[in-house]
Amino acid sequence: MVSHSQSLKPALDAIGKAIDQRFDRLIPVPEDSRARLYEAMRHAAIGGGKRMRPLLVVAACDLFHVDRERALRVAIAIECIHVYSLIHDDLPCMDDDDMRRGKPTVHKAFDEATAVLAGDSLHALAFEVLADEATHEDPFARLELITALATASGPAGMAGGQMMDLVAEHELYDIIGVTRLQQLKTGALIGFCLEAGAIMGRIPDSQRTPLHGYARDLGLAFQIADDLLDVEGSAEKAGKALRKDEAAGKATFVSLLGVERARTQARMLIDQAIEHLASFGEEADLLRAIARFAIERDR
Amino acid sequence: MVSHSQSLKPALDAIGKAIDQRFDRLIPVPEDSRARLYEAMRHAAIGGGKRMRPLLVVAACDLFHVDRERALRVAIAIECIHVYSLIHDDLPCMDDDDMRRGKPTVHKAFDEATAVLAGDSLHALAFEVLADEATHEDPFARLELITALATASGPAGMAGGQMMDLVAEHELYDIIGVTRLQQLKTGALIGFCLEAGAIMGRIPDSQRTPLHGYARDLGLAFQIADDLLDVEGSAEKAGKALRKDEAAGKATFVSLLGVERARTQARMLIDQAIEHLASFGEEADLLRAIARFAIERDR
Repeated sequence: MVSHSQSLKPALDAIGKAIDQRFDRLIPVPEDSRARLYEAMRHAAIGGGKRMRPLLVVAACDLFHVDRERALRVAIAIECIHVYSLIHDDLPCMDDDDMRRGKPTVHKAFDEATAVLAGDSLHALAFEVLADEATHEDPFARLELITALATASGPAGMAGGQMMDLVAEHELYDIIGVTRLQQLKTGALIGFCLEAGAIMGRIPDSQRTPLHGYARDLGLAFQIADDLLDVEGSAEKAGKALRKDEAAGKATFVSLLGVERARTQARMLIDQAIEHLASFGEEADLLRAIARFAIERDR
Repeated sequence: MVSHSQSLKPALDAIGKAIDQRFDRLIPVPEDSRARLYEAMRHAAIGGGKRMRPLLVVAACDLFHVDRERALRVAIAIECIHVYSLIHDDLPCMDDDDMRRGKPTVHKAFDEATAVLAGDSLHALAFEVLADEATHEDPFARLELITALATASGPAGMAGGQMMDLVAEHELYDIIGVTRLQQLKTGALIGFCLEAGAIMGRIPDSQRTPLHGYARDLGLAFQIADDLLDVEGSAEKAGKALRKDEAAGKATFVSLLGVERARTQARMLIDQAIEHLASFGEEADLLRAIARFAIERDR
C-alpha cells in the first residue's frame, strides 16, 4: 500500500514547479542598483519549501471548479506573504536562523537590511497580485481576497501571533494560550487559503462553515506535527534548525501534552478535518490527502 | 506679511489632529499578549511628523470635492505605509537611528523584533483600510488605490529606492542617479498622494497630467529641501539626527550641486509645480500652499 505522503507527492511536485515558474516571471531582476533587492526576493521565493499554502489554495479552488491559472495567482499572493514572514522571522533580532528551506537565510546570503526590504517588497507584491483583474473578473472578489489576506497577516492574525511568540519566553502559556498563539501565527493564513477557494468560487458565507472547520482543525494538527518534528525530526530533512523552542523554554503542544498525547490529538484533529468535507465528493480528495499528509510528513 | 509656512499652519495642525484621532480609533490595544505590538504601532503612528502625505491626499481630494471623511481614510492608509517605512528604515541594520519625530525610535522604545512586526502590521493595515467600502462606494476606485499604493511602496517604488540608498555608499551616484533614487524612495509615495485625489474623484487618466507634473516637481523640491535641512538645519527642530549622508559619503543634491544651486533648483521646481495647477481655481490653493511650504519649512 502506498502511504498517503507518497500519494500527495505528484501534487506537491506540480505545485512547486508552478509556483517557481510564476515567481520567476513575477520578479525579473532589473538592470539597475535595485538588482540586489530582486535577487534577495528570488532567493527566498524560488525553489524550496513544501508550498503547503499554495497547494491548499489550489485544492480549495478545486472544490468550486475555479480556473487553475486564477487559483495560482491567489496561491502566489499567499506564498508572497508566507515567504516575507519567514524572511523577517529569521532575522537576528527575531528567531536568528541561518538556514531556511535548506539554503542560507536571506540575511545570511545577502545582509540584514536587504532582508528587511525583500520581506517588505514581497508583502506589497501580494496585494498588487490580488488587485489585478487577472485574478478574478469580479472586483468584489478581489477586494474580499485583499481584506481577508490583510486581516489574516496583520496584527489580528499572523503578526499578532508572532508577537505572542516573542513574549512566550517570559509568559509561559497553557494549552489555551498556545492554541490561541498558533491560531494567529499559522492558523490565520491557513484559514485564508480555504476562504480563498470560497471567495474565488463566489460561494456565500452561509456555505463556508465546512471550510472554516477544516481549516481550523488542519491548522492545529499541522502545528502539533511541526512541534513533534521539532522534537523528533531531522534538521537536514527540515532544512532548518530544530529544537529551538525547547532551548528557549517555550511552551509547545508537545511540552504541554507529551509526545503520545500530542500525536493522538493531531490524528483526531485530522479525522475531524476530513469529516468536515463529508458533503463534498471527489473534488475534495486533494484536501483530504493534504490533511493526511499534514501529520505524516517528515519535513 | 505672513510667511507661507505660517499660512499653512492651521491646515497642518488640523490634519495632525484628524490623523491622530483616526489612528487612536484604528489601533485599540487588545487585552492580551499582543498588547505590546499595538502599543508599538501607536508609539510610531500617533503624535508627530509633519503629516505632509496625509495633507497632500486631502488637498488632492479637495480638487475634486471628495468627501473629507473618505479622503482621510486614504490619508490614514498612506501614513500607515510612511510610518512602517520609517520604523524599518530606523532599524540598526538600516539607518540605525535613535530618534524620530522627537521621540525614541520604535526599536529603542520597545525592541528590534517588535519594531519589525509593528512595521509589518501597519503595512497590512494600509491595505485593509483601502479595501473597506467606507473608503469609496465604487469597488474599482478601491482596487485602483490598492494597486497604486502597492506599486508605489514596493520594489518598483519606495522599497526599490531604499535599496538604491543602501548601495549608495559603494556606488557614488551622479545627479541622474540621485534623482532616480529619490523619485523611487520618496517621489513614488508623493505621486500616490496626488493620484489618490484623481482616483477618489473618478477623474479619467487623460486629465491627470497636471497632478503628475505637480507631484514630480514637488517631490524633487521636497527632497532637495530635505538635503538642505540636513546640512543647515537643527536636529532639535527636525526631531532626528542630521548630517548622516555627509558622514556616510553619500551623494545628495547638495553635495552634487552645492547649497546655492540646490536652493535655486528647489525654487524653480516649486514655481513649476504651481504652474501645473494653472487650470485649477481656488480649490488648488492648499496644494499651492503646500508647495511653497515644502521649501520654506525648518523641519
